[in-house]
Amino acid sequence: MTAAPSSDFQPADADFAARVRGSFAQQAAMALIGAELVEVGPGRIVMTLAHSARVTQQHGFIHAGIVSTALDSACGYAAATLMPAEAGVLTIEFKVNLLAPARGPLLRIEGRVTKAGRTISVADGQAWQPHPTRAGEDQLVATITATLMTVTGRDNVRH
Amino acid sequence: MTAAPSSDFQPADADFAARVRGSFAQQAAMALIGAELVEVGPGRIVMTLAHSARVTQQHGFIHAGIVSTALDSACGYAAATLMPAEAGVLTIEFKVNLLAPARGPLLRIEGRVTKAGRTISVADGQAWQPHPTRAGEDQLVATITATLMTVTGRDNVRH
Amino acid sequence: MTAAPSSDFQPADADFAARVRGSFAQQAAMALIGAELVEVGPGRIVMTLAHSARVTQQHGFIHAGIVSTALDSACGYAAATLMPAEAGVLTIEFKVNLLAPARGPLLRIEGRVTKAGRTISVADGQAWQPHPTRAGEDQLVATITATLMTVTGRDNVRH
Amino acid sequence: MTAAPSSDFQPADADFAARVRGSFAQQAAMALIGAELVEVGPGRIVMTLAHSARVTQQHGFIHAGIVSTALDSACGYAAATLMPAEAGVLTIEFKVNLLAPARGPLLRIEGRVTKAGRTISVADGQAWQPHPTRAGEDQLVATITATLMTVTGRDNVRH
Repeated sequence: MTAAPSSDFQPADADFAARVRGSFAQQAAMALIGAELVEVGPGRIVMTLAHSARVTQQHGFIHAGIVSTALDSACGYAAATLMPAEAGVLTIEFKVNLLAPARGPLLRIEGRVTKAGRTISVADGQAWQPHPTRAGEDQLVATITATLMTVTGRDNVRH
Repeated sequence: MTAAPSSDFQPADADFAARVRGSFAQQAAMALIGAELVEVGPGRIVMTLAHSARVTQQHGFIHAGIVSTALDSACGYAAATLMPAEAGVLTIEFKVNLLAPARGPLLRIEGRVTKAGRTISVADGQAWQPHPTRAGEDQLVATITATLMTVTGRDNVRH
Repeated sequence: MTAAPSSDFQPADADFAARVRGSFAQQAAMALIGAELVEVGPGRIVMTLAHSARVTQQHGFIHAGIVSTALDSACGYAAATLMPAEAGVLTIEFKVNLLAPARGPLLRIEGRVTKAGRTISVADGQAWQPHPTRAGEDQLVATITATLMTVTGRDNVRH
Repeated sequence: MTAAPSSDFQPADADFAARVRGSFAQQAAMALIGAELVEVGPGRIVMTLAHSARVTQQHGFIHAGIVSTALDSACGYAAATLMPAEAGVLTIEFKVNLLAPARGPLLRIEGRVTKAGRTISVADGQAWQPHPTRAGEDQLVATITATLMTVTGRDNVRH
């Protein structure tokens, strides 16, 4: 038994990629933490997050919250790709599991829609980095499950 | 039926406050996002998080991930106050619920230990801000539950 | 800074208690696991969950999932107390932390609304039992945070 | 970038399948809710959960908590397949997202290890059912992420 692959998602807004890229550019927090948007597909986002001294915790690794910030955006924008042009996306909640210290130098951040609902969507994501000891392999740094809400009209303005 | 209040926690390390303040000062990410450490008690942390243009999302509110970053640190350090001097604290996972847009101007970030275990601890936290329409009231912006691990020896170095 | 106490919640439906008790009685799963409804207040539910051989895991404690089932119902009905008479409540997601083995003989299960929204509500809950070694004290067995949705009309039927 | 497939996991205990099946048989709660163990592989479990009147909520669907109970066991036993023979497995916490009403008649419950650590493991799982309107397709009912702990010696007895 398998879930529908992301490629089956039919965006309601043909210009979803431009819309998502425009919104991402307005998230000052993404520039602050060193996150960049790499791919925008139907129900799917790929970003990168760079290690730098300013995003670290006390041991020199990227702070778990900073990794989570990138993962949250990846999930939110993955959901946004499937929403109507006039809608906004709101994160209701998310949960992250931190599996390995985030050493970098560059994390790959992925977000994919697991369920696209009219009001509520769910997206899952992963953060990867080059494995510190196994050449050619990637290491899973963190996973996320996020619940997103489609907001329109006054709600969109309000949030 | 009530849980033991935080004041019942007996820190294993009498210098817990200085240790936590020193570690916090080494978290470059805290300065980056505008978070400051206000109170350090046994099993309890209070921080502030300031709104500024650089931590915002596309609607001008503080990015949910940035609020989560402060909440994660508050929970981690709340757990750290009860750990032995030589131990380190590692966030295994956390879950946040986002209840209101983070407008600021200054969020109060609290973290409290719910269970202090030898290996695994659990902490809960809240982010508050002045209510945007009800004078004199505070508004709950977000809640967190975090699972922390006490790491010692080689594990402490590794992470 | 403190959250509004539960007593501040104003139910939209004066008959909320009868409505919730009626719905609870229709949840066959509650009888199956040995859960009973004790108190129904505005934004607040108290239940009990009895230890019995049939709800155990391999070590003789109540299965974590069974404790979670009671906690989920407590949160869902706490949210339902504040909903319109014609609305239904749907659990979108929940997270539980398991803090101590569930020995019983009788767990006290509490659910309280943390935020009551028009569409989305959040409730938190706890499971308590008599402390196994400290006479007169209670032990926290598990905590839950649940996200609930108010469903009306066709959605209510569909789910 | 891809994670190591489950088939790469090397069980520490050659008799893991018999051990897991024996433990599952001792979980009275599994029989109570109608869950059966179907497959036991390295880092992977498949179970079924049958719809019956006694596990339902007020609308006749399987209670979200009952689905979660099966998912929790699937994740716990998936982690247990990779643990030493003398170890026990303990669920620290889990989060479930509920994506569709659980109609049955038979749910397929899967659990897979995402990270197998010495002390802490993380497993993810899914519950599927035949799609109610699209013949030949399956519908995703719920997802879980669970954090598990390897317990040995006195801890194993205690829990």
